[in-house]
Amino acid sequence: MRVDGRQADALRPVTIERGVAKFAEGSCLIKIGDTHMLVTATVEDRVPPFMKNSGSGWLTAEYTMLARSGRQRNNRDPSKPNGRSMEISRLIGRAMRTAVNLESMGERTITLDCDAIQADGGTRCAAITAAYVATHDAMEWMIRQRMIKEILMDEPIAAVSVGIVRGTEVLDLNYDEDSTASTDMNVVMTESGKFIEVQGTAEARPFDAKTLGTMLKIAKKGIDELIVEQRRVLGI
Amino acid sequence: MRVDGRQADALRPVTIERGVAKFAEGSCLIKIGDTHMLVTATVEDRVPPFMKNSGSGWLTAEYTMLARSGRQRNNRDPSKPNGRSMEISRLIGRAMRTAVNLESMGERTITLDCDAIQADGGTRCAAITAAYVATHDAMEWMIRQRMIKEILMDEPIAAVSVGIVRGTEVLDLNYDEDSTASTDMNVVMTESGKFIEVQGTAEARPFDAKTLGTMLKIAKKGIDELIVEQRRVLGI
Amino acid sequence: MRVDGRQADALRPVTIERGVAKFAEGSCLIKIGDTHMLVTATVEDRVPPFMKNSGSGWLTAEYTMLARSGRQRNNRDPSKPNGRSMEISRLIGRAMRTAVNLESMGERTITLDCDAIQADGGTRCAAITAAYVATHDAMEWMIRQRMIKEILMDEPIAAVSVGIVRGTEVLDLNYDEDSTASTDMNVVMTESGKFIEVQGTAEARPFDAKTLGTMLKIAKKGIDELIVEQRRVLGI
Amino acid sequence: MRVDGRQADALRPVTIERGVAKFAEGSCLIKIGDTHMLVTATVEDRVPPFMKNSGSGWLTAEYTMLARSGRQRNNRDPSKPNGRSMEISRLIGRAMRTAVNLESMGERTITLDCDAIQADGGTRCAAITAAYVATHDAMEWMIRQRMIKEILMDEPIAAVSVGIVRGTEVLDLNYDEDSTASTDMNVVMTESGKFIEVQGTAEARPFDAKTLGTMLKIAKKGIDELIVEQRRVLGI
Amino acid sequence: MRVDGRQADALRPVTIERGVAKFAEGSCLIKIGDTHMLVTATVEDRVPPFMKNSGSGWLTAEYTMLARSGRQRNNRDPSKPNGRSMEISRLIGRAMRTAVNLESMGERTITLDCDAIQADGGTRCAAITAAYVATHDAMEWMIRQRMIKEILMDEPIAAVSVGIVRGTEVLDLNYDEDSTASTDMNVVMTESGKFIEVQGTAEARPFDAKTLGTMLKIAKKGIDELIVEQRRVLGI
Amino acid sequence: MRVDGRQADALRPVTIERGVAKFAEGSCLIKIGDTHMLVTATVEDRVPPFMKNSGSGWLTAEYTMLARSGRQRNNRDPSKPNGRSMEISRLIGRAMRTAVNLESMGERTITLDCDAIQADGGTRCAAITAAYVATHDAMEWMIRQRMIKEILMDEPIAAVSVGIVRGTEVLDLNYDEDSTASTDMNVVMTESGKFIEVQGTAEARPFDAKTLGTMLKIAKKGIDELIVEQRRVLGI
Repeated sequence: MRVDGRQADALRPVTIERGVAKFAEGSCLIKIGDTHMLVTATVEDRVPPFMKNSGSGWLTAEYTMLARSGRQRNNRDPSKPNGRSMEISRLIGRAMRTAVNLESMGERTITLDCDAIQADGGTRCAAITAAYVATHDAMEWMIRQRMIKEILMDEPIAAVSVGIVRGTEVLDLNYDEDSTASTDMNVVMTESGKFIEVQGTAEARPFDAKTLGTMLKIAKKGIDELIVEQRRVLGI
Repeated sequence: MRVDGRQADALRPVTIERGVAKFAEGSCLIKIGDTHMLVTATVEDRVPPFMKNSGSGWLTAEYTMLARSGRQRNNRDPSKPNGRSMEISRLIGRAMRTAVNLESMGERTITLDCDAIQADGGTRCAAITAAYVATHDAMEWMIRQRMIKEILMDEPIAAVSVGIVRGTEVLDLNYDEDSTASTDMNVVMTESGKFIEVQGTAEARPFDAKTLGTMLKIAKKGIDELIVEQRRVLGI
Repeated sequence: MRVDGRQADALRPVTIERGVAKFAEGSCLIKIGDTHMLVTATVEDRVPPFMKNSGSGWLTAEYTMLARSGRQRNNRDPSKPNGRSMEISRLIGRAMRTAVNLESMGERTITLDCDAIQADGGTRCAAITAAYVATHDAMEWMIRQRMIKEILMDEPIAAVSVGIVRGTEVLDLNYDEDSTASTDMNVVMTESGKFIEVQGTAEARPFDAKTLGTMLKIAKKGIDELIVEQRRVLGI
Repeated sequence: MRVDGRQADALRPVTIERGVAKFAEGSCLIKIGDTHMLVTATVEDRVPPFMKNSGSGWLTAEYTMLARSGRQRNNRDPSKPNGRSMEISRLIGRAMRTAVNLESMGERTITLDCDAIQADGGTRCAAITAAYVATHDAMEWMIRQRMIKEILMDEPIAAVSVGIVRGTEVLDLNYDEDSTASTDMNVVMTESGKFIEVQGTAEARPFDAKTLGTMLKIAKKGIDELIVEQRRVLGI
Repeated sequence: MRVDGRQADALRPVTIERGVAKFAEGSCLIKIGDTHMLVTATVEDRVPPFMKNSGSGWLTAEYTMLARSGRQRNNRDPSKPNGRSMEISRLIGRAMRTAVNLESMGERTITLDCDAIQADGGTRCAAITAAYVATHDAMEWMIRQRMIKEILMDEPIAAVSVGIVRGTEVLDLNYDEDSTASTDMNVVMTESGKFIEVQGTAEARPFDAKTLGTMLKIAKKGIDELIVEQRRVLGI
Repeated sequence: MRVDGRQADALRPVTIERGVAKFAEGSCLIKIGDTHMLVTATVEDRVPPFMKNSGSGWLTAEYTMLARSGRQRNNRDPSKPNGRSMEISRLIGRAMRTAVNLESMGERTITLDCDAIQADGGTRCAAITAAYVATHDAMEWMIRQRMIKEILMDEPIAAVSVGIVRGTEVLDLNYDEDSTASTDMNVVMTESGKFIEVQGTAEARPFDAKTLGTMLKIAKKGIDELIVEQRRVLGI
């Protein structure tokens, strides 16, 4: 039995809204338990220097947490590099670039700003799940602007965390569970069950192949449920 | 007639909520037109070095805008100092320290994180109006924790912008008005009509004493209406 | 009676010199009591990116204090942003841009470097008063270089601080007075008595409208006296 | 057939030396193909603030590449945060902390400096494989200094990259292969075949569970061969 | 014949004033031609961490140039390290530490802030010559404060630049000469003719031992004249 | 008798290798006693902005020490400027620019990365001696690429440290000697005995002209021996 009464393979309650930011080209607010992520998608008619004259577009992501989104205030000096945030920003950008057909987008950049308004574990995965919706939202705007002719994304992708808490493989860890997990794993997956990113870390002790298999299986179940929500809010 | 049909001395629609951040000791979300500010209050059992052994508490503020809170994405390098944000953070902290009885608070620090979730003009004033509520919210928490015995704030304070747009003094400028105003003024005032901060800037041409008087008068009207809202949500 | 024996509405002794920096296009050294500010004006044939192809000029300011200009050495890490200095730099630039006809200046930039050689209160106001002279000095140089045909500034502007010290409104606070003032106000004004910037801050307790009126009145008296000095040194 | 003629599941030639740095408490130089990593282990009698008075030790890692270790010179501004380096430093530290019994080490810190002297792909994995040896080397020094009584590490760990190059799962990618791989995966594993870290990234297109299985299998083969080398050089 | 009509071994006109900064414990303004350096000496009752509990004092220096002290405005980003300034600061501190008996000074720090108010070549040497006077000035203050019993410096030291301009060894180069010199040398020397620092750099072509000898000889002549001025202003 | 048994005017054992870095255009590894410096030369088809359209080339150097190259680990924050490293980088670049005929090189930049793999005193001198070889190595590559027609360097240059240790002038100080030297001097010299850079610093007490003469003489002896090695490895 988990601290909040959930089954081992159960997600926390999820709600997804799109179009929540008045000024952004695309946006999505995901609430998964007490984790609230706001993702905005900005479309700009420029690409970074290394993509100039490639004919292709670009997508990048920035992940941040509001200073008091979590249990303690984050006293970090904003002028110092934050390794964790940079690592997560890189992960989100990489995953979304795999999901988007950048070649057909023209020399434009989509920037995904992922802000943890409230943080109770699983923010990076929530960000990716919301980023898919915000990007889709922005592409509908691009179609209306006649920048592109169709949505330039293949099947939906979503992300979820799994881990080993007190010896059991569990889905979608909250902050308390995450703090005590002996293994922590993030899985980004497509609707058809293919992997975009698998990151598993033994925090306390190494895990074996069988455990890896179980974690990937319950991750798949969580991803499937999240994609149902994404499809519902996007009407696809 | 103003761009959004308001009278010269009319506020945009205002809603104030408190207790919106699950993990913070105090919080407030203010929506004034399309400007949405989230203010959290963090209470910590420490004071900065220059206040050590003073027996007194401290209060400080940090103002930030989400990267895509406004019409354009803010491409600022986060490691570079942002003069505007630092100036606003200093203003909020200074105003709130005047409103709070720090001497009776013990060696504790209240940190007000003011995040512009959506920005359509007037964010610094919205932050101060919300900061009063979030600080009150945090002090109720402190009373429940038996850290203090009563709310350590005098009469309510609020803030509003006024300015001169196409020759007329107007209240609570939105972003479009702000961009074309010849004078821009921010007024922080107490319920009894005393000034905590007055900052008036001639953007295009100097203004005379009579205009200053008119601006201060309509600012007072706006402040009065905001304080009614503050009192309602705080039940005081 | 004030610590240095002045009347409530009296300036400290003022001297203004121009042309003090051999290599700069314009310069001014103002001594007001023990506050000594050196302002140099640099004229360059370039404008910042956001002004390119506008046909118009630009003016910007940088305020710094020598490390040991004041009573204590300033141990600040120079690589860290200094909120106070940035705020003052922004104020000086804003005020001077209102005073200068940038549209007629061609795509040139005037940079005002304002260095507090010695600091005993009122440095930001002294900087603005000197900046008017240094800019005028630089424009005479520009006329000699046939860059412009006439001085591109309207009536003189100057700045002065006022405040409430031990219950009385006083003019031109020195450091000791500033440290104990319950309200601190900086006023930038034109010769004809119009406001360019009004910044009043209640440090300890809110002030009322009558007090505001008295402070603005004695500020006007100080401004008038400073402009007499400016006109004398500029021969206008 | 691979560019350098290797079998799909073959490592590049590997040599491992220990004790190569005269002044460090432990050190290891690994050459795997044209990738040369130098890892030094520094032992210090202090722990970071968050470990003070825990009775336990700490281990941390810093990964850097010499400016001209690779095909192009790295022109990065050293004062700017390098997301990739920080991410790799965090990975190495995390993996090695899982492998070391920090609780029994006393309040000491082992710092692993991992410098890519020459870089031809797989530097992060080479760093981890060498870090195990350098840490062991340092612990032998600690035993000689009577700081500890025995080597405080469980079974050996090593790391290797695998990926999908032109449709085939291959082991230990060099830089050319890495640049064209559709999937890139790093595996950190213990001698008994348990996972410490699994990081698989679809660069171009998602990969399925069967492919994941094949990659993990050839990773295991590579790890086994690296651990034979580690044991040989450590004489264990 | 030199650009300003001087003999090869002639200094520019020199004036030295002490006690020019009202708030500093010691100060000196040196004008050597159009180079004006202000040096303040700050005395603080603390030493840096590496000198704690040594019983000995410390001395350090900071060299800066006002942004428009020279022919062009210095557009440097102040948050970026300035190699030249750091190198000169280190030189001044090193030279002055050799000249001062730090062991007898108690755990106090003298900080020498050396600001180039106007720069026409030779600022680093002017700074050292003035630093000797400012330090002496501060030590007189320390004696009055009964911190020390006597001046803790041996014989005077001064510094001067020499160089090879159009084939001739010349003393005290101004900016124009410095820009075209084929060799540039800075010499810090004691009154009795001993070397504290010798830094000679071939800018364009190597120089031989005979030239080195000539340069050192005319440097000695300049140093002698500067020390006469120092003695005069210090009354020693 | 010196700590390692050397004569006062003896170098430590020296070995020089070239072509040690597979991916760089030129490289050199010098071992002088326990000091090991790796210098790579990168050739790029660009010059810095201030050299654009000059028709001439440029050469620059970066000096770094591996974190644990010396007796203690260097805990420096890499984002903070390192005065010592910047000073040494500037010295190496300056010396090598004097030795190279940049005018005939075309608009190309040679960047010398000088990394102290192991540091036991004399790293800056070792870097210069190796930089001559690495630059020569890169020029042979440039000739093979038909970028230039001949080696664009005059006679060889090398560098060596000298100093006064326990009253005696000694050549090529190791770290222990350097720590106790009363004077420390670095000499960069050409084969024909001309000076490129002379930097002598009295650490504890001033030194006289006779001592300077002795130090320069034994420096010449060391330089001669180093140049024999350079010639041997370069086959010139």
